[in-house]
Amino acid sequence: MAHRRIITLLTDFGDQDTYVGIMKGVIVSIAPEARIIDICHNLPEFHIESAAYMLWTYYRQYPAGTIHCAVIDPGVGGDRAAIAVECGGYILVLPDNGIAGMILSDSKRKYRAFVIENEDLMNKPVSSTFHGRDIFAPVAAHLAGGVPVEEVGPPLRTPALLDIAEPVAAENNIRGCVLHIDRFGNYITNIPYDMAACFNKKTIFVKIGNFSIMGISGTFSDKEPGELVAYFGSTGMLEIGVTRGSALETIKLPVGASVKVTGRTNDR
Amino acid sequence: MAHRRIITLLTDFGDQDTYVGIMKGVIVSIAPEARIIDICHNLPEFHIESAAYMLWTYYRQYPAGTIHCAVIDPGVGGDRAAIAVECGGYILVLPDNGIAGMILSDSKRKYRAFVIENEDLMNKPVSSTFHGRDIFAPVAAHLAGGVPVEEVGPPLRTPALLDIAEPVAAENNIRGCVLHIDRFGNYITNIPYDMAACFNKKTIFVKIGNFSIMGISGTFSDKEPGELVAYFGSTGMLEIGVTRGSALETIKLPVGASVKVTGRTNDR
Amino acid sequence: MAHRRIITLLTDFGDQDTYVGIMKGVIVSIAPEARIIDICHNLPEFHIESAAYMLWTYYRQYPAGTIHCAVIDPGVGGDRAAIAVECGGYILVLPDNGIAGMILSDSKRKYRAFVIENEDLMNKPVSSTFHGRDIFAPVAAHLAGGVPVEEVGPPLRTPALLDIAEPVAAENNIRGCVLHIDRFGNYITNIPYDMAACFNKKTIFVKIGNFSIMGISGTFSDKEPGELVAYFGSTGMLEIGVTRGSALETIKLPVGASVKVTGRTNDR
Repeated sequence: MAHRRIITLLTDFGDQDTYVGIMKGVIVSIAPEARIIDICHNLPEFHIESAAYMLWTYYRQYPAGTIHCAVIDPGVGGDRAAIAVECGGYILVLPDNGIAGMILSDSKRKYRAFVIENEDLMNKPVSSTFHGRDIFAPVAAHLAGGVPVEEVGPPLRTPALLDIAEPVAAENNIRGCVLHIDRFGNYITNIPYDMAACFNKKTIFVKIGNFSIMGISGTFSDKEPGELVAYFGSTGMLEIGVTRGSALETIKLPVGASVKVTGRTNDR
Repeated sequence: MAHRRIITLLTDFGDQDTYVGIMKGVIVSIAPEARIIDICHNLPEFHIESAAYMLWTYYRQYPAGTIHCAVIDPGVGGDRAAIAVECGGYILVLPDNGIAGMILSDSKRKYRAFVIENEDLMNKPVSSTFHGRDIFAPVAAHLAGGVPVEEVGPPLRTPALLDIAEPVAAENNIRGCVLHIDRFGNYITNIPYDMAACFNKKTIFVKIGNFSIMGISGTFSDKEPGELVAYFGSTGMLEIGVTRGSALETIKLPVGASVKVTGRTNDR
Repeated sequence: MAHRRIITLLTDFGDQDTYVGIMKGVIVSIAPEARIIDICHNLPEFHIESAAYMLWTYYRQYPAGTIHCAVIDPGVGGDRAAIAVECGGYILVLPDNGIAGMILSDSKRKYRAFVIENEDLMNKPVSSTFHGRDIFAPVAAHLAGGVPVEEVGPPLRTPALLDIAEPVAAENNIRGCVLHIDRFGNYITNIPYDMAACFNKKTIFVKIGNFSIMGISGTFSDKEPGELVAYFGSTGMLEIGVTRGSALETIKLPVGASVKVTGRTNDR
């Protein structure tokens, strides 16, 4: 292979422990040539939508062949499966709890999924509390080292898809929800640009909780400091921010909150 | 050498400053081929037991030859020595303040320790406040580049060993303490599985503060949400958690708290 | 080139999102051989002085040829330029908002600066909210891959220089200010050792807010626990700390606070 295989790591292990450091040790021991890239290890609180959104934001930015390992796994010790999914030139190694949902939808569900059952690829004995070390890291490393994905275990027809409401478009409105709130306090919704493009930008009303925002701006700094602003963010989704401030501090609603867009269509 | 030498970094420099970034610059300037792996830079508060435990958790996960550099060093500016220790195929580069204690005990004290005094391997002039930059990083880099460990300085017969009470086993009980509290609020004790294995799992009582837990579970999610649960964690130590919650929020005791295990032995 | 080009990353994107992970994906896609080094992604609150200080602390620790990419950019979406600056063997890729100020002063202003306008080096379409992904990361990657710096766009005679008061020396005193407060609560000032060296160390008074410190110590641990201490820190600047404590908790003043040093000169 021309270039070293990349393994990206997204976990909820935080930054106060050695769990991620242990996973990296497992990886470099099995696949010394693999390149490990830290994505993020702090999810403030578990929201399946938020984790699925985060994974979706970066996976396509990496070269084909990259292995995206995501250990966001409140169900460790329960009975969810560990899976490997080949999709769009990438391999995902993660728990089958829906966090791959946005990627799998995005790929129009062209993927091959496998349940990880091949113990030869695991760190034994497999603990009941740290699948990051015992399953996800060693499997990702073996895949980086050239093991074909179908060797991890039997095929899985239907991985868990994220059971969030897709945005629903009617003639004069779109109903969606908040997928993620970033560290700046911006609300990122599940309403993509393409869906809202039919509305005249100046007539759009965005409603969240008791707050209404008139019109779509070019960016979050387009209004007076402290004012709410709606704009399409860097991932193409409708976002709600506050110019030089935090929308979270103003709106105070959590991930999952409803968002409604109303407007007149451009062709009227 | 077939593979690039690895240098792992464990520090208490946090994630809001450039101290770690400066150390990495020193390393890549001296040993451009070394591979740097971040373990963790946030220790919530200094506890020698917790730091020693953290270092112990990951060192064996790395390939032989790895250099583990740990700058957890509230005594910088004082008179503790800087040392390099060859142990079990690894080299530790760290202050002589006891944080290597669990590894040195673990290795049955087969190690070679040296006091770092060779100024040719240091960044000069050596500051009194930032030994990470001036001593630990450059020495780790020179070792990665092939300098033999005995060149760092004179041998040291007895590095500081961690002065924590080893768990004490009597006929019907074991007395230990809390080594670490992780970001999920799980209490990790110094009582290993091997020591507790003589007790019948169902008859075991685990006592910490005013709380008692009956029986050992397979994992932290084995009880009803909110209930305390005792289990053997991923490093083989007895841990106390709360199913879908935080034991820290319930128990509210710090690192160092006493833990007592009582039970009937299996062979009775 | 003998060694892989290094790209360091300093951002204010925090550790709860995937913004940094996205930037890394852009970089490895364009320049697979580049070595990415994380410096710091958490600035507690935006202070131009603090960001400029942080960048200045580590840039010279890296080998010549290193590309320092700094995306500390509250003005994204506004009209500040993106620039690339060749300076002292390094290339800086950053917004033209003054954060390069301390480096450019430090280099006695020998540098070549260019406005980034060449869209062939950008990720298109360029969003209005995420220049890290669309401008800074791809430009840094192309430079690492060998594109000459003058190809990024037209020359810029005068980048924004940091508009902070330089320390002012009078016969018996120096007036400066706080540049940065580190995670240990130490105050780092803009008063360098060279400027204060003319004063007799024992006669120096350091004044900040309502607090006065008599004499300069060798390090922050030279006094009784809890006492304020003034010393020259690892970057050569006057710092104010508390032995085994946090000066921030005692002094409670923010970045930018005034600091005054008075004393008798040594030659009197």
